[in-house]
Amino acid sequence: MITINSPLDMHLHLRDDDMLKIVAPLSSQDFAGAVVMPNLVPPVTTIEDVKAYRDRIEKAIGNDDFEPFMTLFFKKEYDYNFLKEAKKSIKSIKLYPAGITTNSEGGVSQIDTDELKETLNAMSELQIPLCIHGESNGFVMDREKEFVPVYESLAKAFPNLKIIMEHITTKDSVDALKKYDNLYATITLHHLLITLDDVAGGLLQPHLFCKPIAKRPEDREALLNIALSGDKKVMFGSDSAPHPKSSKEAPGCAAGVFTAPVILPKLVELFDSHGKLDNLQAFISDNAREIYNLTPIKKDITLKKEQWEVPSDYDGVVPMFAGEKLEWRVI
Amino acid sequence: MITINSPLDMHLHLRDDDMLKIVAPLSSQDFAGAVVMPNLVPPVTTIEDVKAYRDRIEKAIGNDDFEPFMTLFFKKEYDYNFLKEAKKSIKSIKLYPAGITTNSEGGVSQIDTDELKETLNAMSELQIPLCIHGESNGFVMDREKEFVPVYESLAKAFPNLKIIMEHITTKDSVDALKKYDNLYATITLHHLLITLDDVAGGLLQPHLFCKPIAKRPEDREALLNIALSGDKKVMFGSDSAPHPKSSKEAPGCAAGVFTAPVILPKLVELFDSHGKLDNLQAFISDNAREIYNLTPIKKDITLKKEQWEVPSDYDGVVPMFAGEKLEWRVI
Repeated sequence: MITINSPLDMHLHLRDDDMLKIVAPLSSQDFAGAVVMPNLVPPVTTIEDVKAYRDRIEKAIGNDDFEPFMTLFFKKEYDYNFLKEAKKSIKSIKLYPAGITTNSEGGVSQIDTDELKETLNAMSELQIPLCIHGESNGFVMDREKEFVPVYESLAKAFPNLKIIMEHITTKDSVDALKKYDNLYATITLHHLLITLDDVAGGLLQPHLFCKPIAKRPEDREALLNIALSGDKKVMFGSDSAPHPKSSKEAPGCAAGVFTAPVILPKLVELFDSHGKLDNLQAFISDNAREIYNLTPIKKDITLKKEQWEVPSDYDGVVPMFAGEKLEWRVI
Repeated sequence: MITINSPLDMHLHLRDDDMLKIVAPLSSQDFAGAVVMPNLVPPVTTIEDVKAYRDRIEKAIGNDDFEPFMTLFFKKEYDYNFLKEAKKSIKSIKLYPAGITTNSEGGVSQIDTDELKETLNAMSELQIPLCIHGESNGFVMDREKEFVPVYESLAKAFPNLKIIMEHITTKDSVDALKKYDNLYATITLHHLLITLDDVAGGLLQPHLFCKPIAKRPEDREALLNIALSGDKKVMFGSDSAPHPKSSKEAPGCAAGVFTAPVILPKLVELFDSHGKLDNLQAFISDNAREIYNLTPIKKDITLKKEQWEVPSDYDGVVPMFAGEKLEWRVI
């Protein structure tokens, strides 16, 4: 048996409408809270959008045992007064380079510290963290590495702004993270487990296709090392990203791995297999509380060693490890 | 209008049974001959297998306007007497590292020049070229690069053996090719056109998933340069590899791009767009004649600049460029 205090998922896609109803309960039953991504169609860019989306999430969950940490989709037009008001309803703002992932078409096309200065200085002053999907539009295996200089220039130009490198996948990002006090990162479950070999090294596995794409073995190793160490600069963020089975198992397969139902069992198994169970509480909750300066709902989640089989799908959404047996179970 | 004399496809999968009947006519109408891969289930390993498979191919084509160049699936047990007899029915022998691609389970598990000495010396003496699928079992992006030392040790140990590096995809292979007189290579259409970005850089495209996987932009550039130059050490080999649509558009998608129906139009377009049409005859036929020391059936194929739309599928097999318009047409 192992008990985790208030597990937090600091990067989650809950989507909207029918999909929201399918996936929100799967996260809320295992977590005390989650940072909810704003890349809906259209994206969440006003305080009214935020409030209305939070209402829909709370309705889909049906209890107050889970706190959705709301976010805005970054726009350089956000000014100090808007942000001051927004801060009452959000926990962070997510910046997407334009066109880099699902529903990011309205993102930032040029990340220029000068051009974003007003907004980022206001966020810095108001202590609103900036979350970034850090990829260039270069060759798929180089996109994150090529974005590192952008992270560094932002970290230097806005030393009091907390910058969160979302879902990092490379050794380059782990190295950059260590160089600047105001850089932090989320790491997903799947990037701790897989490399490009698992996606395309044998037969092609569309359900493991995601952005950023899984990288090389030495990258996974660097992610594992920093996550297992409990390092205070990294926190868990699943990037659990549901798509209907029909859009995953077709040409033009959408990017995203749906991990929500298997996260805690697999993280316990992973940390346990490396003799690092003592560091799981930091990775899955405590580091996030410090980085985001938040106090989550008190919610203990207990797992016991008991085999169960992951369903083949949840209302047409295929989870990671579908049909496989896991060793730990949330009780 | 452009006329090609006896185009040859020096690496082709014709499969068997129903699939053979679908795809064989598509190659035979545009080509004078093709090297036919032996990785059936079970693989083609006896002279009787070769003859029976050739009969099935000829029946599927229904005329004698196309010559299937038959091959054997490499086994280290092949001795001089067997090979001497086999030579009357085959053009080359294909070596697969075990488990590296479709139906290669019975391949060679350790490529040791000493262990393969007897067979390779016999092939060398009998002037039977050795075709190799050159990949290690390492990380998917490194497999071909890691195999280069094997090519080099074979090239040095058997200097009179013609070794054909099949479907090369990397700059490393192009560089190795130039270093040894007895190394040659085939290059596919799709590896001249795509990189990993086209497979997994945007949405995931299972119909472009193949082995070896498409590599980096600088690799594609190296392949293009040597192919367009008409260099005598490289020849066209499509590796056109049909799979039923149902097995491509599903988790565990099979590796292979089905290019047979679009090869000549796209090669003409590619060479033309680089101002290298004069070198196409060498790449698509003349180099292969010299490397394999063969005289193909005389067969002129003419293309004219006339738009046509590639069918969405051929009896359930989806071709590259399905539904797209091509500028050149075989008449």
